[in-house]
Amino acid sequence: MFRKVLIANRGEIALRVLRACRELGIPAVVAYSEADRESLPVRLADEAICIGPAPAERSYNHIPAIISAAVVTGCDALHPGYGFLAENPLLAEICAECGIRFIGPPAQVLSALGDKAEARRLMRQAGVPIMPGSEDPVRDASEARAIARKVGYPLLVKAAAGGGGRGMRIVYREAELAQALSLAQQEAQAAFGDSTVYLERYLERPRHVEVQILADQHGRVLALGERDCSIQRRYQKLIEEAPAPNLPSKVRDALRKAAVRGAKAVGYVGAGTFEFLLDQDGHFYFTEANARIQVEHPVTEMVTGIDLVQWQLAIAAGERLTLSDPVRAQGHAIEVRVTAEDPASQFAPRIGRITDLHLPGGPGIRVDTHLYPGYAVPPHYDSLLAKIIAWAPDRQQALDRLDRALREAIIAGVPTPIPLYRRLLRDPDFRAGRHSTVFLQEFLDREADLAPSA
Amino acid sequence: MFRKVLIANRGEIALRVLRACRELGIPAVVAYSEADRESLPVRLADEAICIGPAPAERSYNHIPAIISAAVVTGCDALHPGYGFLAENPLLAEICAECGIRFIGPPAQVLSALGDKAEARRLMRQAGVPIMPGSEDPVRDASEARAIARKVGYPLLVKAAAGGGGRGMRIVYREAELAQALSLAQQEAQAAFGDSTVYLERYLERPRHVEVQILADQHGRVLALGERDCSIQRRYQKLIEEAPAPNLPSKVRDALRKAAVRGAKAVGYVGAGTFEFLLDQDGHFYFTEANARIQVEHPVTEMVTGIDLVQWQLAIAAGERLTLSDPVRAQGHAIEVRVTAEDPASQFAPRIGRITDLHLPGGPGIRVDTHLYPGYAVPPHYDSLLAKIIAWAPDRQQALDRLDRALREAIIAGVPTPIPLYRRLLRDPDFRAGRHSTVFLQEFLDREADLAPSA
Repeated sequence: MFRKVLIANRGEIALRVLRACRELGIPAVVAYSEADRESLPVRLADEAICIGPAPAERSYNHIPAIISAAVVTGCDALHPGYGFLAENPLLAEICAECGIRFIGPPAQVLSALGDKAEARRLMRQAGVPIMPGSEDPVRDASEARAIARKVGYPLLVKAAAGGGGRGMRIVYREAELAQALSLAQQEAQAAFGDSTVYLERYLERPRHVEVQILADQHGRVLALGERDCSIQRRYQKLIEEAPAPNLPSKVRDALRKAAVRGAKAVGYVGAGTFEFLLDQDGHFYFTEANARIQVEHPVTEMVTGIDLVQWQLAIAAGERLTLSDPVRAQGHAIEVRVTAEDPASQFAPRIGRITDLHLPGGPGIRVDTHLYPGYAVPPHYDSLLAKIIAWAPDRQQALDRLDRALREAIIAGVPTPIPLYRRLLRDPDFRAGRHSTVFLQEFLDREADLAPSA
Repeated sequence: MFRKVLIANRGEIALRVLRACRELGIPAVVAYSEADRESLPVRLADEAICIGPAPAERSYNHIPAIISAAVVTGCDALHPGYGFLAENPLLAEICAECGIRFIGPPAQVLSALGDKAEARRLMRQAGVPIMPGSEDPVRDASEARAIARKVGYPLLVKAAAGGGGRGMRIVYREAELAQALSLAQQEAQAAFGDSTVYLERYLERPRHVEVQILADQHGRVLALGERDCSIQRRYQKLIEEAPAPNLPSKVRDALRKAAVRGAKAVGYVGAGTFEFLLDQDGHFYFTEANARIQVEHPVTEMVTGIDLVQWQLAIAAGERLTLSDPVRAQGHAIEVRVTAEDPASQFAPRIGRITDLHLPGGPGIRVDTHLYPGYAVPPHYDSLLAKIIAWAPDRQQALDRLDRALREAIIAGVPTPIPLYRRLLRDPDFRAGRHSTVFLQEFLDREADLAPSA
């Protein structure tokens, strides 16, 4: 398939890719920063190469260092994992120029999907539902009022250059629109040096539902089912499951078809995810496409039995997708992200040394982690420590099994959200699958209200 | 279901039962010997109770200690695991008298199946194929010759009281029979104080194939598919897989039907296994039934998605088997038993402290183990340390995945057969599923021949 693969990433995903390479019999080289010299992927690797100092811009995000590492170690393929350079069109291009197969979509697909306005335009053309909103920047209040009548309330005034909630205003009634517009423009100007704003429909309690796809180089695109990733903290997913609970099969089918249509429209190749927001009436709206393997891919693997990372490698090597359509799924899988974060302090990331470690095992449990006893969690990177995934014949049993696994997990030395997850697993609304992207915040607010005031 | 379950066992199976109880929401108490005070099941248990000193006859095999532990801790059910008292009719009876539900078949079923001659008789009556042989003890050479002509050669002269190969002689031709008979009788007399011998057909390169069944208290019996456990070392299974490779579907169906017939004939209740030897022409012969959960149950769990230990509990509580028949299985699963044994010294058991431990994880891997870093392997018990099980869509991928898992496993402090297993996984005959119960010995002999003479 390939002579040798460079794994240009760290942590659990580096180990995940190493496992796929080994199962396929392909030698792999782990590229690591100085901060990761003692990391588990490096310890377990066939071969490893240091690509620079700890800061990502000098190692994991440093294209010349990564390309050199691939060349020096004789790799003819490169797996970027997720984050860092995984969706960087320039890396994909330079790989192509150097005769190294980039394991991901072609550069032009990465470019098109990386530009949110362009992705929106392409999806609209392809007939994928997108969130109603203004096509062009909104200049003044009278223009805003006219557009808002078409978009409908509640709506968002949103900075074009925005992110992380800045330059964003929710408007429930026309009377509030003019002031919100002016405040958002001022905020956007102050934060990004660009006062351009758009209008977009605002969903109050949406669910985040996404569709996993695989597309080969020969034009075949397959949907591998959807995931519900509504349990989020500031747009950061914490719990993901497959299939999405309480989804009418009509909506499920429509979601899958929309994702396949979208993937075909952009000439997608590889593993990818199309993300949607779903309102309470079953309408869904494309938000973005992720042109990489995702953190939450194991839940799809557990219900389908399909190894997505092996397929990434096979597709990059030119193999045809031989999976049956529709892909058969069985049971229910749910993943929690165990991070080095303190939920009691607004999920602030923490560093520390793992002083005691017991990972759960037994039936239906999968753990993807780079932890080992004595591991020092470095301050430089994402706080993800481990993914604990439970599978069972149905959702209730999967939740019970996950709770059992979390109960036996011991990760000492840094705080993690495991105790919070165990409380959340007992919440009747969560157990009933009645959750939305605001669920976690409301759950935390309820807990804070119940806590004895000190 | 139950108020509280006493787990009257140790090691990985104690943890396995604890997990099932937790997933069902049943409190559990781990009964442990003084040697197991620091063991993982005890550390992870809701509640634990010491039942005596290290020697099994003073703790795990000591019925009064176990019954007292159940009574003192308020348990209304008892799970015996495997080994120790798992198939002891007396324990089952005393439990019944004390109002404690024994999680296993009724005492009379344990009695019937525990007596090999009685079990053979019952199976013959039920129409389950048994190994051809003499019905009654064979006294002299002329009687032996007459019976041998009906049974066919090669055959075994076998001590009635025998075990572990003692008092056993293989006879290939009639000319050898008289001497073999006399030697076996002398050996049996010396070893067991009983010179009684039988004749039985001898299969030269049989496969060990067994059928997992579940039977509820309402007369429903279900076969959950078969396992191939041919990779053995002196009748000790080392590698098990499901389904059995290269088995014509006609034979597979006939095996399952035979097991169900056998289970119905004895009034079986609970989880059990019917073991058969399979010759190269697809004929199979009942050898014994195991009236308990078996070490190798996870391979069946992985291909069916069914939790056998949870079903043991549910059946004991009187629930009806609601599984569909035939049970649907997907893909292939293979387990290796990681023991504290040195294959280079005739698999001699070893004790020691686990100085470094990294258990494999990631897609398709399940690990059932009571190991933790620093754990001292005690000298008193079975040498099983861990079961590493791999699942994949097909057998070849499952073998590749298992090899990947074994490669990343680190268990330092005691020798294990992991390096041997990795060599075995590369053997072309094993990969092709052309193996029998003599495969491992032949493999070891070949390796010894190839080794440089020192």
